[in-house]
Amino acid sequence: GPVFDKETYDNNDLAGVVTGLAWTSVGGEILFIETNLSRGKGKLTLSGQLGDVMKESAVAALSYLKSEAHKYDIDYRVFDKYDLHIHVPAGAVPKDGPSAGITMLTAITSIFTQRKVKNKLAMTGEITLRGRVLPVGGIKEKILAARRAGIKELILSKKNEKDILEIDERYTKGLNVHYVETAEEVLELALMKQKVANAIDLVVED
Amino acid sequence: GPVFDKETYDNNDLAGVVTGLAWTSVGGEILFIETNLSRGKGKLTLSGQLGDVMKESAVAALSYLKSEAHKYDIDYRVFDKYDLHIHVPAGAVPKDGPSAGITMLTAITSIFTQRKVKNKLAMTGEITLRGRVLPVGGIKEKILAARRAGIKELILSKKNEKDILEIDERYTKGLNVHYVETAEEVLELALMKQKVANAIDLVVED
Amino acid sequence: GPVFDKETYDNNDLAGVVTGLAWTSVGGEILFIETNLSRGKGKLTLSGQLGDVMKESAVAALSYLKSEAHKYDIDYRVFDKYDLHIHVPAGAVPKDGPSAGITMLTAITSIFTQRKVKNKLAMTGEITLRGRVLPVGGIKEKILAARRAGIKELILSKKNEKDILEIDERYTKGLNVHYVETAEEVLELALMKQKVANAIDLVVED
Amino acid sequence: GPVFDKETYDNNDLAGVVTGLAWTSVGGEILFIETNLSRGKGKLTLSGQLGDVMKESAVAALSYLKSEAHKYDIDYRVFDKYDLHIHVPAGAVPKDGPSAGITMLTAITSIFTQRKVKNKLAMTGEITLRGRVLPVGGIKEKILAARRAGIKELILSKKNEKDILEIDERYTKGLNVHYVETAEEVLELALMKQKVANAIDLVVED
Amino acid sequence: GPVFDKETYDNNDLAGVVTGLAWTSVGGEILFIETNLSRGKGKLTLSGQLGDVMKESAVAALSYLKSEAHKYDIDYRVFDKYDLHIHVPAGAVPKDGPSAGITMLTAITSIFTQRKVKNKLAMTGEITLRGRVLPVGGIKEKILAARRAGIKELILSKKNEKDILEIDERYTKGLNVHYVETAEEVLELALMKQKVANAIDLVVED
Amino acid sequence: GPVFDKETYDNNDLAGVVTGLAWTSVGGEILFIETNLSRGKGKLTLSGQLGDVMKESAVAALSYLKSEAHKYDIDYRVFDKYDLHIHVPAGAVPKDGPSAGITMLTAITSIFTQRKVKNKLAMTGEITLRGRVLPVGGIKEKILAARRAGIKELILSKKNEKDILEIDERYTKGLNVHYVETAEEVLELALMKQKVANAIDLVVED
Ligand SMILES: [Ca+2]
Ligand SMILES: [Ca+2]
Ligand SMILES: [Ca+2]
Ligand SMILES: [Ca+2]
Ligand SMILES: [Ca+2]
Ligand SMILES: [Ca+2]
Ligand SMILES: [Ca+2]
Ligand SMILES: [Ca+2]
Ligand SMILES: [Ca+2]
Ligand SMILES: [Ca+2]
Ligand SMILES: [Ca+2]
Ligand SMILES: [Ca+2]
Repeated sequence: GPVFDKETYDNNDLAGVVTGLAWTSVGGEILFIETNLSRGKGKLTLSGQLGDVMKESAVAALSYLKSEAHKYDIDYRVFDKYDLHIHVPAGAVPKDGPSAGITMLTAITSIFTQRKVKNKLAMTGEITLRGRVLPVGGIKEKILAARRAGIKELILSKKNEKDILEIDERYTKGLNVHYVETAEEVLELALMKQKVANAIDLVVED
Repeated sequence: GPVFDKETYDNNDLAGVVTGLAWTSVGGEILFIETNLSRGKGKLTLSGQLGDVMKESAVAALSYLKSEAHKYDIDYRVFDKYDLHIHVPAGAVPKDGPSAGITMLTAITSIFTQRKVKNKLAMTGEITLRGRVLPVGGIKEKILAARRAGIKELILSKKNEKDILEIDERYTKGLNVHYVETAEEVLELALMKQKVANAIDLVVED
Repeated sequence: GPVFDKETYDNNDLAGVVTGLAWTSVGGEILFIETNLSRGKGKLTLSGQLGDVMKESAVAALSYLKSEAHKYDIDYRVFDKYDLHIHVPAGAVPKDGPSAGITMLTAITSIFTQRKVKNKLAMTGEITLRGRVLPVGGIKEKILAARRAGIKELILSKKNEKDILEIDERYTKGLNVHYVETAEEVLELALMKQKVANAIDLVVED
Repeated sequence: GPVFDKETYDNNDLAGVVTGLAWTSVGGEILFIETNLSRGKGKLTLSGQLGDVMKESAVAALSYLKSEAHKYDIDYRVFDKYDLHIHVPAGAVPKDGPSAGITMLTAITSIFTQRKVKNKLAMTGEITLRGRVLPVGGIKEKILAARRAGIKELILSKKNEKDILEIDERYTKGLNVHYVETAEEVLELALMKQKVANAIDLVVED
Repeated sequence: GPVFDKETYDNNDLAGVVTGLAWTSVGGEILFIETNLSRGKGKLTLSGQLGDVMKESAVAALSYLKSEAHKYDIDYRVFDKYDLHIHVPAGAVPKDGPSAGITMLTAITSIFTQRKVKNKLAMTGEITLRGRVLPVGGIKEKILAARRAGIKELILSKKNEKDILEIDERYTKGLNVHYVETAEEVLELALMKQKVANAIDLVVED
Repeated sequence: GPVFDKETYDNNDLAGVVTGLAWTSVGGEILFIETNLSRGKGKLTLSGQLGDVMKESAVAALSYLKSEAHKYDIDYRVFDKYDLHIHVPAGAVPKDGPSAGITMLTAITSIFTQRKVKNKLAMTGEITLRGRVLPVGGIKEKILAARRAGIKELILSKKNEKDILEIDERYTKGLNVHYVETAEEVLELALMKQKVANAIDLVVED
């Protein structure tokens, strides 16, 4: 059975943790993208047995955020003053594919802005470098996993809308699904204006 | 079916995004070269599951632009002050070969000059370090993909002219095909004088 | 037979040495996580024929500690002024998996705080980047190894409680088992307030 | 058929482009060594799907030039102030072997001195670190390719003279073949005193 | 036959050379660990076709010494001002395993303190990061090799004492065997107080 | 047949070029070790398709010279101010093994001291980090190659003396063979006091 279950993160007290949806050989599963920052020199660390496509996804998400930093009130200099770590538990399970792209982007943006992530929300979708959200596979299995985990709200690529329409309504009932085309829409939906309690103050010395 | 379709980028509001043409086992397809810049130290990041030939293509295109920076009013010092990321969605599909060379060059030049890329334009061709445009394969399949995607204008190597002449005129009708020998001609054709709205001002501190 | 036995570290005079539990093809075994610090530039060295999952575990544990340094009265600048080495004897035996995560975290925290580790204590559990403690396998075999080694106290993930309940009480008798959900709880249980004799004074020059 | 043909570079307007001769499974072919410089820190980039022997050839040629810089009026500090890129089109064709050594040396020297390369000249030969020119194979096939490409002058190792003598005179008629023993002789023969039009002025700030 | 024999180092005039014992498919053999220092930046070089376990051994030994530098009157800053090279001749013979650990530690400590190594002494044993000496295999074969090489004194892990007791007394007669538990004991036994003639004075500029 | 022959370097005008002897599947052959220096930061480049044993040999030889620099009147700071390149033509032939060790040491010492190498001299032998000269194989085949190449003087390890004694005297007649135990003896025999004409003056700025 899955290592993660709905109570692993039953609140959104922590910045930088976002729920994604994975599609594995044994069905859909939720996964968590965890990020943290520590004072450093801008190093990016990726862990959790990530395949190269998933790693490129993370790098593209970070690139996107860096180039759009001003939109999210992030001083571009913090990227060089902190080390960013992105981890996907469970650490022994190999993971790959581009579908965690928007989840990673949301986690990174949350940790750099210290903004809360909306509760009971999950998402799946590829992100491009310029902020396009591309469709991904396994939508049906992911929907089932989302419901089992108590997810109430879902973000998908607009191009996955057709996949949802093909699923029996019983499965999507009670799920609020948002279809998006851009990274901006994802972050608008997923991040709250409010910062986490004990938000860290990202310092840039001159 | 293809992840990309003509409406993914139905405008040219963004600098650094250029449409190329790929030739795959299932026919021709359009692809997008996306680039972005963030403050940094001149690092080049390549993503999108690119093979080594395609990576070398990107490196050669960047080298060419660096050595000809003055022609395009680029202060050579910006190359060291910004990190450049080149990404080719969809991130899970392996891509290789030299035929995206001129597309990459155009995308890089657009992002560094912030000049708009001409709309409904696609291109395919190998670029050499000194700016020669070499012919590539799969022209017929690429033509078909270009038309399906609503492309109106095409840039090819002069040495691919013979391949176009062998194609039934029905397929090329309405397509304005430019044959070029040099990178200069490509950029002259593809880049508009006008900058994108909200063009970023590439800063070089002394 | 095992290289290690209970008398290898029969005291807790040294900071940075913590007892873990491994599950191998020939049953459970205790293992030691050893750490040390030397003046340097923040380099991390891992040795003891560690597999990539175990290495990622160590990196995540260190990341967690770095981002929570203030909680443990660690000046964040020491991470850049000392090199950290994590070693798992015996050096010729390949080791892998995420289950040494909390053991590594405890060893690292002990070496950076110079606080003593509680005596006759062992632990096993995966750590996530944000300090969640995840369940691991082989609990029964590990319990047997712990008893053979004279362990009196054990730290496990709350999600491993069910595995303990399935074991014949004879085997757990006399073992004080703590079930935890977070890294904070692990460190609260495992580290003493008292520093080791001859504690080194981690220096940060201005 | 070959991608390159005689009209690809039908003039010698560009510094740093030199014609070599390759020997492939389908016969002899001409190839071009292209180089360029951009402001940087002395990085060397090699591209064009070069095998490790060919890469070592390039590195040895550059080493030779660096240690003999004074002979060619090159300020040794420029090697650290510019990045050098060596590319061999066509970018998708794997290339290997030491026989492009003297061609690479000539191209590098031309780009660093901005001196013109003699027109309708080709060459083939291994270069050693101390400037010896060693013989290479496939001389007959290379001669045929040179003639097809309109080459009028050829540089070979003195130790390849015997290979030329074995070839029917019909094939070498009209070809002016120079036999050399040292790198100095190669550069004396291949580089003109005249600089290219618009020669770049390699700047070394103090 | 073996390349090394007893007269290779028939004196102890050099700091940083220590005799170890290896166990190969053809029996036991003596080996030499050679170290030297040159002005540099703290780089560690390992050579002699060492396997990864043996390399980790060397790294752990160096880590141990760095963290205990004060005990041996070594100014910690010398580790950053000198490059250390550890070599195990004969250079073409692959070597691996953890049993040279204490030999490497002794050699490194000797070179950094310039203290003489006791004559006609050999040793074998794994070292842990915190200075524990672990038992190793092949004791009987190593004893035979030691005697053939004229060794008079031997250092072993206390946990190898049982292996010696199982060997016919004829083989150990005249050999003074020391059983140790810690690195400190090894260095106490192996290093003389006296420095080598022409001891180099390790300089640290301020 | 061999690429090299006796007339490749028929004089000793160049510092840093030394003749070695290799043993290949087709018999013995002479080889040349070429070195050069260029202003830089102490980088070491090895080329000529060298195997890892041969590379380690070069690194050990350089380490030895660095640690004994004072003996040869080399300012230790030059090692950081110049880049050293070691090349073994012919560049396409794979080479390996430790037997070029003393040849490499001689070449490196010659280039750093600018002292001439004795004419018509060849050598073969492994070097250890502390300057011991170890025996190597293929002595008979190497002797034959040396004579064919006009070599008059030979340096071998003392432990190879027995191999010479087993060879028919006809083959060694007229060859002056020196048997050595240390690197010092090699350099004493091989390097002349006299510097090469146009010796470069290795500069160390303060
Ligand atoms: Ca549950
Ligand atoms: Ca992959
Ligand atoms: Ca569509
Ligand atoms: Ca490839
Ligand atoms: Ca025991
Ligand atoms: Ca693995
Ligand atoms: Ca043609
Ligand atoms: Ca190769
Ligand atoms: Ca002997
Ligand atoms: Ca191994
Ligand atoms: Ca000859
Ligand atoms: Ca090898």
